[in-house]
Amino acid sequence: MVLELKVPHEVELAALRPLLPVLLSYALSFIYLGIYWNNHHHMFHSTSHVNGAILWANLHLLFWLSLFPFTTAWVGENHLAPTPTAVYGFVLLMAAVAYYLLQRAIIAQQGRDSLLASAIGCDWKGRLSPVLYFAAIPLAFVNPWMSTGLYVFVALLWLIPDRRIERVLLKREEP
Amino acid sequence: MVLELKVPHEVELAALRPLLPVLLSYALSFIYLGIYWNNHHHMFHSTSHVNGAILWANLHLLFWLSLFPFTTAWVGENHLAPTPTAVYGFVLLMAAVAYYLLQRAIIAQQGRDSLLASAIGCDWKGRLSPVLYFAAIPLAFVNPWMSTGLYVFVALLWLIPDRRIERVLLKREEP
Amino acid sequence: MVLELKVPHEVELAALRPLLPVLLSYALSFIYLGIYWNNHHHMFHSTSHVNGAILWANLHLLFWLSLFPFTTAWVGENHLAPTPTAVYGFVLLMAAVAYYLLQRAIIAQQGRDSLLASAIGCDWKGRLSPVLYFAAIPLAFVNPWMSTGLYVFVALLWLIPDRRIERVLLKREEP
Amino acid sequence: MVLELKVPHEVELAALRPLLPVLLSYALSFIYLGIYWNNHHHMFHSTSHVNGAILWANLHLLFWLSLFPFTTAWVGENHLAPTPTAVYGFVLLMAAVAYYLLQRAIIAQQGRDSLLASAIGCDWKGRLSPVLYFAAIPLAFVNPWMSTGLYVFVALLWLIPDRRIERVLLKREEP
Repeated sequence: MVLELKVPHEVELAALRPLLPVLLSYALSFIYLGIYWNNHHHMFHSTSHVNGAILWANLHLLFWLSLFPFTTAWVGENHLAPTPTAVYGFVLLMAAVAYYLLQRAIIAQQGRDSLLASAIGCDWKGRLSPVLYFAAIPLAFVNPWMSTGLYVFVALLWLIPDRRIERVLLKREEP
Repeated sequence: MVLELKVPHEVELAALRPLLPVLLSYALSFIYLGIYWNNHHHMFHSTSHVNGAILWANLHLLFWLSLFPFTTAWVGENHLAPTPTAVYGFVLLMAAVAYYLLQRAIIAQQGRDSLLASAIGCDWKGRLSPVLYFAAIPLAFVNPWMSTGLYVFVALLWLIPDRRIERVLLKREEP
Repeated sequence: MVLELKVPHEVELAALRPLLPVLLSYALSFIYLGIYWNNHHHMFHSTSHVNGAILWANLHLLFWLSLFPFTTAWVGENHLAPTPTAVYGFVLLMAAVAYYLLQRAIIAQQGRDSLLASAIGCDWKGRLSPVLYFAAIPLAFVNPWMSTGLYVFVALLWLIPDRRIERVLLKREEP
Repeated sequence: MVLELKVPHEVELAALRPLLPVLLSYALSFIYLGIYWNNHHHMFHSTSHVNGAILWANLHLLFWLSLFPFTTAWVGENHLAPTPTAVYGFVLLMAAVAYYLLQRAIIAQQGRDSLLASAIGCDWKGRLSPVLYFAAIPLAFVNPWMSTGLYVFVALLWLIPDRRIERVLLKREEP
């Protein structure tokens, strides 16, 4: 978590007002990173052996997540200007794609009756999110607030932790 | 620990004097982060299974702790101006609330005869601290030094490590 | 991974164009750090006991890797100017040397029939890379793009994960 | 390791010359942090149970180590001016004191026939280092290069890894 906040030079409460969009984008990115960290934790919990493909898929995901501080600061410091908002969505989209590829790599390694595959099931959240990000990118040039609304909506979708893996793991432990 | 100190351009000993409030707020925040880290360590030591609620409560706590470098720099660079001092207390208050919620999540998961619940007992420190932070926030607009005094006082309260959990853990290990 | 990207003040898509060399050097360094992290992971997987020499060789490697953010930013912000490009190659070269020394330290500790030694085999990649870095350094003063091409080429060479260790490890586990 | 290097705006090799003292202080601090990390690793290896006092002594050490980036940048950017050089030594001194206190806390917890106590023995290095730092602080106002020479000398003393603990650990494992 290396998101950064610039310290204002003024000391009035009013000095926090221009920081508001910065704080909001900070909080949104924090929640996104939290969602990834959370589901990532559960996903690796179901993985016993890590091979080269998984390590690379993981690094690929980290690459896009490592760009979050950059896009977060850019969108926040410019009060949701169209281009930064679109770029923010692009990085979210790429992170979602990278997460999907990581899932595939783990399932491929676990073989046919993969624990992760059965846990994920139809994965409607994983399918819907990239579509919404993809729609939000051009929308940013029409109305950046609508794109931001979509980003917040997807975050809320995922805030409900991914209990699917938890449930399947518990079931397998039962006799 | 990502607290930051700006390097002064002068090379005289006097150059450290304007840094003094920065250093003091740095040290205070370091101690606070240390207290959280310390008690956090003990708390998770008593936790065998981590569920989704605990992970989220933990992230929530991390969110407020991640704002410490920001409020620390703001209060330090402005020699304890009223607003930064109040905001500093607000973040302390939110972190305390988040810690309380994390404790609740762990106790809920551990069930009726929770190890953590019996270790915490009446938790007078956990109850008193938010009250003091809450009082310190408006006080900052009267006299920021009194608010800072309260922050230091609460830190001293907690500096005595939370031996309650340690004690209960040891007792259970005895025959 | 502490590579950093400076946030542009403009909000047009065009604002990303001067960032392009920064992004490219960022991505290249990310891949290099990923390669080191990846192979490092495999290498330490084959190591049961860590002695002082290994710890120091590891720190020496970390020293050169810790300079990546500096050289990455310098080369990126100056659109591949000759000197930054040469210095970038110099740090790559020193990291490669440090990695070689770390390998030697681990092999020395493992004794004659070292798992790592047999896994590495002739190590043509490890021998070729420093030669190419060494060639790229003076070349930067002729044509920095050719040096950069060499850096990209070496990265591609290594992107194929080091399955040698994986393979030998698996073989030993077989009866 | 959060030491930082500022990226120069020029692109000539000459741009690295003013960076030279920065690089030297960077390397020296890196070695010092490496020494602490290294010995710290060995010390905790000999510790089975961590109590509150050890955690606090550890945090105290971390506090002083966390000031290294600040003093390193200050001394480096000012070409070894007297005050920064003296402050650099003061932080080294405090870190040495904190390390000593951490050792004491671990030995107190291990009881009479402490593994660490017997491993450390007379600990002449641990006794000599603070004395040399203490001498280097006033010396910085006479000749900062002599102080720096002392810092380098102490670093060289410790560069020889602390095999004492390693040796004793190995001996105990023997029948």
